[in-house]
Amino acid sequence: MKIIGIADTTFARFDMAKSAIEELSAIGTGFRIVRYTVPGIKDLPVACKKLFVEKNADIVLALGMPGGKPIDKQCAHEASQGLIAVQLEVLKHIIEVFVHVDEAEDDRKLAWLADRRTREHAKNAYLLLFKPEELTKNAGKGLRQGFEDEGEIALR
Amino acid sequence: MKIIGIADTTFARFDMAKSAIEELSAIGTGFRIVRYTVPGIKDLPVACKKLFVEKNADIVLALGMPGGKPIDKQCAHEASQGLIAVQLEVLKHIIEVFVHVDEAEDDRKLAWLADRRTREHAKNAYLLLFKPEELTKNAGKGLRQGFEDEGEIALR
Amino acid sequence: MKIIGIADTTFARFDMAKSAIEELSAIGTGFRIVRYTVPGIKDLPVACKKLFVEKNADIVLALGMPGGKPIDKQCAHEASQGLIAVQLEVLKHIIEVFVHVDEAEDDRKLAWLADRRTREHAKNAYLLLFKPEELTKNAGKGLRQGFEDEGEIALR
Amino acid sequence: MKIIGIADTTFARFDMAKSAIEELSAIGTGFRIVRYTVPGIKDLPVACKKLFVEKNADIVLALGMPGGKPIDKQCAHEASQGLIAVQLEVLKHIIEVFVHVDEAEDDRKLAWLADRRTREHAKNAYLLLFKPEELTKNAGKGLRQGFEDEGEIALR
Amino acid sequence: MKIIGIADTTFARFDMAKSAIEELSAIGTGFRIVRYTVPGIKDLPVACKKLFVEKNADIVLALGMPGGKPIDKQCAHEASQGLIAVQLEVLKHIIEVFVHVDEAEDDRKLAWLADRRTREHAKNAYLLLFKPEELTKNAGKGLRQGFEDEGEIALR
Repeated sequence: MKIIGIADTTFARFDMAKSAIEELSAIGTGFRIVRYTVPGIKDLPVACKKLFVEKNADIVLALGMPGGKPIDKQCAHEASQGLIAVQLEVLKHIIEVFVHVDEAEDDRKLAWLADRRTREHAKNAYLLLFKPEELTKNAGKGLRQGFEDEGEIALR
Repeated sequence: MKIIGIADTTFARFDMAKSAIEELSAIGTGFRIVRYTVPGIKDLPVACKKLFVEKNADIVLALGMPGGKPIDKQCAHEASQGLIAVQLEVLKHIIEVFVHVDEAEDDRKLAWLADRRTREHAKNAYLLLFKPEELTKNAGKGLRQGFEDEGEIALR
Repeated sequence: MKIIGIADTTFARFDMAKSAIEELSAIGTGFRIVRYTVPGIKDLPVACKKLFVEKNADIVLALGMPGGKPIDKQCAHEASQGLIAVQLEVLKHIIEVFVHVDEAEDDRKLAWLADRRTREHAKNAYLLLFKPEELTKNAGKGLRQGFEDEGEIALR
Repeated sequence: MKIIGIADTTFARFDMAKSAIEELSAIGTGFRIVRYTVPGIKDLPVACKKLFVEKNADIVLALGMPGGKPIDKQCAHEASQGLIAVQLEVLKHIIEVFVHVDEAEDDRKLAWLADRRTREHAKNAYLLLFKPEELTKNAGKGLRQGFEDEGEIALR
Repeated sequence: MKIIGIADTTFARFDMAKSAIEELSAIGTGFRIVRYTVPGIKDLPVACKKLFVEKNADIVLALGMPGGKPIDKQCAHEASQGLIAVQLEVLKHIIEVFVHVDEAEDDRKLAWLADRRTREHAKNAYLLLFKPEELTKNAGKGLRQGFEDEGEIALR
């Protein structure tokens, strides 16, 4: 039985963890989900490390929704650096799912994007844990999470 | 008996630690507060680590008020990275409460913001320590500390 | 028998790993290739560390194609920092092969660039592993991977 | 007997260490000063760590004068990150005293600023080492080093 | 017998290592030089660490010539951060000698600058290793490597 951690925030304007849990439950079995909520994205790195160390998570989804101001971008940058540091310390993947509020023109589109990106990355987490060879089949295919795939380009 | 550390600065123009102490005292019991003051925000990371290692803090509030110039933003960025590094080393939360002076149009509003944000984050620190499940209830609700909450968005 | 790791992504729009494998096979022998595919470039640091630690790689090629938006540049920056951290931890080289989509004016040129840069860096990885003295012969020669070499400049 | 380390550079245009030594000698006793000079600010992090590890410093003043170009700002940023890393490793304070040349309109003002800021931070270092409670008395007072204090703001 | 490591790149357009070796040989004796060439500046951090750990270097000169585009500046930033990290890990100096191509108006001046800066920093490395007190004599003198010294400023 594997453990999938989900770290999310009260700052986000959409319940991304709900989308992740729904999607993971629909995809497969063989895992248990542990959720941990913190105030903001800068609290996610230690939250993820706690999920690995204290809850024995095998992989973690880090869900966040950075604001649109320069300071928010900087916070996201700091959080991302921390998430990479945690992964190197525990030698396990954290799938960062950040939806920047300025990626969508209105709240409705933002909710759609947060839901879709979370679901598609939940699937990535599942594949990394259970079927990593599936990802290699899609290497270089220009996949995107949320918006449409960009697609593959070829020589000539 | 838990220990809540408070690290603050002589650089800040508002006694944020006073707000934090007042709020924490009003919220609950079962903890003791240890305070450590340093000159500026770049001194906060090691101050927080000292609170964890030398004073056995279980969580720390890092209080600071970065200036409005580009160099101040850079200092805040460096401080934030350090605060994340400390959290990963000790596997405990630091709640960063930074109030940028250019977030408010005048001194009165700035004092109000520093007080409010500190109090709301003091509560977050309390919840993380004693009632983490309360944060999960508010996951994705678009909460903000200081200014008004942004609120939740939904699909459709 | 040495082991060359290749970490690549499903985000990239070109199968850079294919170019790397073809080139390495054409250059020489004495090594085995292990490939690991992750969703995006920010997943590469831990993927590379896994190749070193779990697959005993002696060197790793980290292949990625960052997008053209500011957020993509920031992701590439975070990934690069992580790749440097991994190298210092394991004391082995990671050759980062990043092709930014805005380096080429159209998809055809982008595919050409991704193929060429990957092949030239695959050769660099081979030389670092088997013939490091060959690199010293080219020190200061203004070599580039993908686009034309800049060439050497001299005093007077 | 405590040890106060001073790390400075040949790049700086003012002998900040001289100001620091004068000020420390005037403030109090109970410490010995160890000085280490390096070429530039990016050499300061390891210089400070050497002062802690090889010279048993209890606190270090890192004195530097970054230039006014973007590359100089980046160097200062890198140096600052390194100084924070050192502090976390040794669990001791480094008081960073950086005077950016574009903070002053001419050489005379720059020399004045370098002297004043160094002296005021030398006092901070002394207080952190011998009388940390003095800093708490000034928490939130809007203190500045070099230029005039900003002062405290209050609610209402 | 001390060991001076030199890490350089095939990306640079000038053979900076040659200038360093010539200058070091002219300055003094009591050391042996070990050279290691890598493709680009982002490969320098691990190259330097290898020189320390595998070749027992006592100090390393890291020679590079970053390009003029924003991505090149970012690479230089990442490399510099890595070089600082290595120094803290091994507690030894790396003298970073980076010559940005946009520091000179043409190839001739660029070659001149690369040669001069490398030679002046080679001397700094020699002094740090054998006569550190010489650097203290020049503290605060506004020294530059390559271009003319800025000179010292005084109070009044």
